[in-house]
Amino acid sequence: MLSISPLSLEHKPLIEHKINTKTKPVGSLGQLEIMATQLALILGHDKPQIIKPTQLVFAGDHGVSGLGISIAGPEVTGQMVANFCHGGAAINAFCAQNNMLFHVIDCGTVNEQPEHPVLTKQRLGHQTAPFHTNNAMSNAQFEQGLSFGAAAAQKAIDNGANLLGIGEMGIGNTTSAAAIMHALTGHELDWCVGQGTGVNQETVALKKDIIVQAIIHHQSQLSNPQAVLQRLGGFEIVQMVGAMLATAKAGKVILVDGFISTTAALLACKMAPNARDYMFFSHCSKELGHKLLLKELNADAILNLNLRLGEGSGCPLALPLLQSALAFYNYMASFEQADINVEQS
Amino acid sequence: MLSISPLSLEHKPLIEHKINTKTKPVGSLGQLEIMATQLALILGHDKPQIIKPTQLVFAGDHGVSGLGISIAGPEVTGQMVANFCHGGAAINAFCAQNNMLFHVIDCGTVNEQPEHPVLTKQRLGHQTAPFHTNNAMSNAQFEQGLSFGAAAAQKAIDNGANLLGIGEMGIGNTTSAAAIMHALTGHELDWCVGQGTGVNQETVALKKDIIVQAIIHHQSQLSNPQAVLQRLGGFEIVQMVGAMLATAKAGKVILVDGFISTTAALLACKMAPNARDYMFFSHCSKELGHKLLLKELNADAILNLNLRLGEGSGCPLALPLLQSALAFYNYMASFEQADINVEQS
Repeated sequence: MLSISPLSLEHKPLIEHKINTKTKPVGSLGQLEIMATQLALILGHDKPQIIKPTQLVFAGDHGVSGLGISIAGPEVTGQMVANFCHGGAAINAFCAQNNMLFHVIDCGTVNEQPEHPVLTKQRLGHQTAPFHTNNAMSNAQFEQGLSFGAAAAQKAIDNGANLLGIGEMGIGNTTSAAAIMHALTGHELDWCVGQGTGVNQETVALKKDIIVQAIIHHQSQLSNPQAVLQRLGGFEIVQMVGAMLATAKAGKVILVDGFISTTAALLACKMAPNARDYMFFSHCSKELGHKLLLKELNADAILNLNLRLGEGSGCPLALPLLQSALAFYNYMASFEQADINVEQS
Repeated sequence: MLSISPLSLEHKPLIEHKINTKTKPVGSLGQLEIMATQLALILGHDKPQIIKPTQLVFAGDHGVSGLGISIAGPEVTGQMVANFCHGGAAINAFCAQNNMLFHVIDCGTVNEQPEHPVLTKQRLGHQTAPFHTNNAMSNAQFEQGLSFGAAAAQKAIDNGANLLGIGEMGIGNTTSAAAIMHALTGHELDWCVGQGTGVNQETVALKKDIIVQAIIHHQSQLSNPQAVLQRLGGFEIVQMVGAMLATAKAGKVILVDGFISTTAALLACKMAPNARDYMFFSHCSKELGHKLLLKELNADAILNLNLRLGEGSGCPLALPLLQSALAFYNYMASFEQADINVEQS
């Protein structure tokens, strides 16, 4: 799982030369030039194309979600899975609009949904154990979760996708993500815990309190990312990590959604640092923690739209910009081709 | 020209109710919700759609461009017009990728190009007079420029477009835009003058010096936006202003590109404040002046990608986000439709 190759930089000078001789001032396409370079390194420097971009949404429930840390109860995770299946959620609208294939993975929810063509069941249980008093999952669930996530990614890749959007749904999962962030980065709790999808200050205090209890309970056992994930994580988070690692291993593009998905990305990069080479970060949300996580990953988000929804919603929104980055890379004329002479300063 | 109706707010409560009952926490789609509301107010609350989105690029040359204020000479404006016609520029790649129709308007360039299907010639001359010692254009050119710009917009609207991207090409035009900004807003020159597409600090100092000379030359004659535009503007800038006013008058969507286009937007709003209701701002560039202009217009840019190219390039890049805003507005299920009960906090 962890033998991920770093990107070969062999063609980087060629790619940069190609970008710098396009009919525009050097660097004038800003972040799009950086995106084009990374995409061309991943997908090949000669007419790279994004093929069958596919959004995976991993859903899971959390033992801590019964403690009043969210605006909804855990039954809503399953209801939203049903909504995904029926095409009624934001992520459905965005995938349809931006031509992304869509798949939802039940990683273990309280409210199990019937079979559906866009639903894959890879259930690790009904919900994790409450992580402030228990390990969120057993070692067997942890290992199985990584494999399940990898299988979901591999299925999309086998179907022809070379870009996977990775998102999640799970009532209560910002608390798990904040705990993971705190354990991995050492940032103080105030910086890790935010309002999630919209809780009040009282609930924020409760989220912090649960994380403090968890840190005391698991103390000295959180020294590696695997342990952090097993003890504080979620069924959807472990499967996202597995999916990201498998996508990177296959040399495909990972497009990361919001705060919780970025926590999974940080876990994946701690477990296999080369995975970072394959990642793009679709957006930066309102959560302060998200900004800090992106900094930790040395990442500039593509969009800054104050989104705080999850469900992978940032991925199809950012996809057209990745496609536009390739469009200029592949189709713009060079100064020579256009017969224009400009002294570049 | 100036009788532009404000947006009717009659359906705003209905639009907001529709957005707030979608299957997502209230406000969780951030800026997309604000975009959807404004679009629904402009295009109608019942299944609003963006139709035949069309990018207009206005090209013009500047008398001051011979003074060494840019990385290229004025002949490059015409060469880039040719590049636009032949499909080799960034804006061509972005329009093709994001399904925008494309049109370039020669507003008056030193290097005139032959006829081409995507080119409309509405030339006000070869180039403006150097604005630090002269009025950039005569009163007749100014009036004609507004009419020409309006005609270009009307032509696209007559062709069925209900959204127009407004961008420009003109070697030296950041100097004109900075002078206009300084005259309109009173911001100090250091905040108005930037590196444009990439000049060095010496050239920035020269740009400032020319503007100081202009302000001395035109002093006390810059008290209204029309005078500022006529005395300091460009052939492409006056036509952009005309196009924006006509688009707003027709009740269609204006999508503004970068620093220079935003200067035109500010002029249009100073001339007819209700025009602001119809505007979206595609991106915020690296130029500090652009950030301040957007603040002046009380606008949040859609993208922040450090673009500094112009040619309308931000418009097709931002378009998919406007379309996604309408996609969630039109196609997401409500909680009632999805049979989900969530207590909104």
